[in-house]
Amino acid sequence: MPRLTEATAAKRRMHILDATAHCLFERGLLATSVDNVCTQAGISKGAFYSHFPSRDALIHAVTDMLAAELGPIEDGSIATLADSVFERRIAPALPPAHARFGIEVTAASTGDSGLRERNTANLERLRHAVEAAAHRLIAAGKARADADAATVGWLVQAHVMGVLCRNAVWPAQDAAALRRGTHLLLESLLAPV
Amino acid sequence: MPRLTEATAAKRRMHILDATAHCLFERGLLATSVDNVCTQAGISKGAFYSHFPSRDALIHAVTDMLAAELGPIEDGSIATLADSVFERRIAPALPPAHARFGIEVTAASTGDSGLRERNTANLERLRHAVEAAAHRLIAAGKARADADAATVGWLVQAHVMGVLCRNAVWPAQDAAALRRGTHLLLESLLAPV
Repeated sequence: MPRLTEATAAKRRMHILDATAHCLFERGLLATSVDNVCTQAGISKGAFYSHFPSRDALIHAVTDMLAAELGPIEDGSIATLADSVFERRIAPALPPAHARFGIEVTAASTGDSGLRERNTANLERLRHAVEAAAHRLIAAGKARADADAATVGWLVQAHVMGVLCRNAVWPAQDAAALRRGTHLLLESLLAPV
Repeated sequence: MPRLTEATAAKRRMHILDATAHCLFERGLLATSVDNVCTQAGISKGAFYSHFPSRDALIHAVTDMLAAELGPIEDGSIATLADSVFERRIAPALPPAHARFGIEVTAASTGDSGLRERNTANLERLRHAVEAAAHRLIAAGKARADADAATVGWLVQAHVMGVLCRNAVWPAQDAAALRRGTHLLLESLLAPV
C-alpha cells in the first residue's frame, strides 16, 4: 500500500471514526464489528487496519472523539449551570440510539479498561466542573454559603448518569420535564434560602 | 422422569434460582449460561428444563425473586424516607458483583422485553413510593408545602439509578458518603425552608 501523507491519513482516520459513530448509534456497541465499519466507510479491511490496530483501539478513538465534542460547563448563575449541565451532558444523549450506546459503554466499561478510563475521565470532568462551579457561585454570593460543593458535584454526576439510564430504559422522555428536573435539583441544592 | 410433588418442585425451582443468582453475581449476566447454572445447582440439563423452558425464563424468574426481596419505602420523616431509599435500593446493590449485574440488566433491558418489563416495574415502584411518601410528608407538614412530589419521585429514581451506575463504574464507593448524598438530596428537595 502506498504511504499516505499525514493530512490524508488524518482525514481518512476521521472518515472511519464518523462511519464508526454511525454504526454505533445505529447498531449498538456490541453489534458493531470491524466489517460493519468497513462497509459503512466503504474501505477494505486492509485499509482499516492501516489506521487502527484493533476494534478496541477504534472504539476508544470514537469515545475520545465524542468526548471532545462536549462543550464546557458554564456557571454565571445556578440557572446557567443547570442549563449547561442539561444542554451539554443530557440533551445530546437523549436520542434512543445515543442512549443505548451510552449504557452499553457503561456496561462494557466494567470489562474493558481502556473504555473504562475514557468513560471515567469524562464523568470526572463533569463532576469537577460542577464542583468548581458550585464553589464559584458560593464565593460570588449566588449560592448559599453552606452549600456542600463536593457533594453537589457527585450528586449532579449521578443525576446525569441516572437520567440517561432512565432514558435508556424509557426512551422518548419529555425533554422539557427532564430540564425542569435538572433545574429543580440544582436550585434545591444551591439556592440561597 | 417421575412427577415431582408440587412442594418438591417449588423447592427445586428455588434451589435453581439461588444457584442462578450465585452465577449471575459471580460471572455476570452475559457470561451465565444454563450449563453454568446446572453445574452450580448440581442438576442435569434435563432436570433444569423440566423447571424452566429457557434461559430467558430463568433470568426473568431470578429478577422477580430479587425484586421481591426489596423492602418497603418508609416515610415517617424526610430522614426516614432517605434512609429507606438508601437501605432498600442502594446499599444492597453496592457490592461490585451486584453492581455489575444491575448495569448488565439495564443494558440488556433495551433488547429483552421480558427483562425490560421487570426492570421498569421495579423502578416504577420506587418512583411511585417516593412520590406517595413526598405527598404524605407535605400533607403532614413535614415537607415544604410547595414541594413538587412528582418531580421528587423521578429525581430520586434517577438518583438511585445514577448512584448504582457510578458504583458500577467506580466500585467500592464510600457507603457513608453515598448515604449522606441521598440525605442531602431529599432534604434539599423536601425540607421546609
